[in-house]
Amino acid sequence: MAGRSVLVTGMSGLIGRALREHVEGRYTLRALNRSAVEGVPCHRADIGDLEAIAPAFEGVDTVVHLAADATSPNPPWESILHNNVTGTYNVYEAARRAKVKRVVFASSGATVSGIEKDKPYSDLVAGRYDGLTSWPMVTHLSPVRPAALYGVSKVWGEALGRQFADTHGLSVICVRIGRVHAEDRPMSPRDFAVWCSQRDIVRLLERCVEAPEAIRYDIFFGTSRNKWGYRDLEHPSAVLGWEPVDVAEDHR
Amino acid sequence: MAGRSVLVTGMSGLIGRALREHVEGRYTLRALNRSAVEGVPCHRADIGDLEAIAPAFEGVDTVVHLAADATSPNPPWESILHNNVTGTYNVYEAARRAKVKRVVFASSGATVSGIEKDKPYSDLVAGRYDGLTSWPMVTHLSPVRPAALYGVSKVWGEALGRQFADTHGLSVICVRIGRVHAEDRPMSPRDFAVWCSQRDIVRLLERCVEAPEAIRYDIFFGTSRNKWGYRDLEHPSAVLGWEPVDVAEDHR
Repeated sequence: MAGRSVLVTGMSGLIGRALREHVEGRYTLRALNRSAVEGVPCHRADIGDLEAIAPAFEGVDTVVHLAADATSPNPPWESILHNNVTGTYNVYEAARRAKVKRVVFASSGATVSGIEKDKPYSDLVAGRYDGLTSWPMVTHLSPVRPAALYGVSKVWGEALGRQFADTHGLSVICVRIGRVHAEDRPMSPRDFAVWCSQRDIVRLLERCVEAPEAIRYDIFFGTSRNKWGYRDLEHPSAVLGWEPVDVAEDHR
Repeated sequence: MAGRSVLVTGMSGLIGRALREHVEGRYTLRALNRSAVEGVPCHRADIGDLEAIAPAFEGVDTVVHLAADATSPNPPWESILHNNVTGTYNVYEAARRAKVKRVVFASSGATVSGIEKDKPYSDLVAGRYDGLTSWPMVTHLSPVRPAALYGVSKVWGEALGRQFADTHGLSVICVRIGRVHAEDRPMSPRDFAVWCSQRDIVRLLERCVEAPEAIRYDIFFGTSRNKWGYRDLEHPSAVLGWEPVDVAEDHR
């Protein structure tokens, strides 16, 4: 075990497990998790309880905050409020108190995917490609358009991160993660726009952990380099040097 | 009593009282308020309790949602969570259940005023005008930059409104209200940028109530026409025909 001390919330989830596998041995890893995680120091607590989670943040350099209710497609309000809204506040606040340098926040494409109700995005995600040659990309500077309460909760987490960065000097990097599957390949027409392979997302998260300290706040989309994608990939390339290596279209 | 049925939350506050005075007799007014409001039908309930507030929404055409913890400068987290985060969810949800047509949401310039940490806005709000002739205006399409948890809670309310509009067909209009004072004049150097007179804000809120039904979602800044303002006033002029009549500079 060596390198910087990284606390991962939600390590038992799909992306958490993939991230662990990718970085294990290079970082001093810890887990903050509701259920037990074997093989790394794991602080078991409910993310909705600030005092209960606070000890997990002592001595940590960087937090990768993946824990959330991401139950598809639409978790109930009470769970969103407890896990995503309060839970994310608790993570930033515990990080601030423990003088953590950076929080990498697992945001979501759901912050903007409400736009899929409108053309041409509705055609893109339905696989109706006739006549579609180009379309306006959605970037980190575009207005949000959250899909479901889940997407709203991720807008909340991004705005809260911006405020902690401005007010408390915490470095916050938000990653708007695309659709990641256990099967690690596109599973629906929509995935040819928004899919992200496991290796692409864990390499992006690693870049966010390693990014220069001078980055106070930023937002990046994380999808594979999909032919029918509508989420900007130039910004993470320019700032982080991250280039996705997978392409949904290769899995047709 | 006549005209459309309008429910005002937070009618006992500064803007709520001014709005009531402006529209009384033209709308069928009701109040949803924690404390008693005399002279209009008032449903007394805690905005954080959905079941308790729900009856107030029956038969209502339009809700003007002003209730929030706006204690300056920084209300505690527990109050933000209860009154602004949960409270605003409850208002949209109760409106949806009661088939209300529109919610006018009292958002705030605090959704973007974090930018006042950066030049030239830091100079503008400090009254350091030397060499300042023009500056980029912040518009409803600019990325948010919330000041304090209060501003984050207003970003939440806007994003939630977007989602209710997209998913449930509710019409939602967000007004990013500037600094309104009981004294009804600018009180600090910053006010020469962000002040809004009482008559300007109540006329803007009225325009939002009266705006065409076809408006599904929009965001407008509400300040007076201040010489040193940085918040866009062209969009509410173009869409609503609203023109502020007051100017902070006239009160020097």
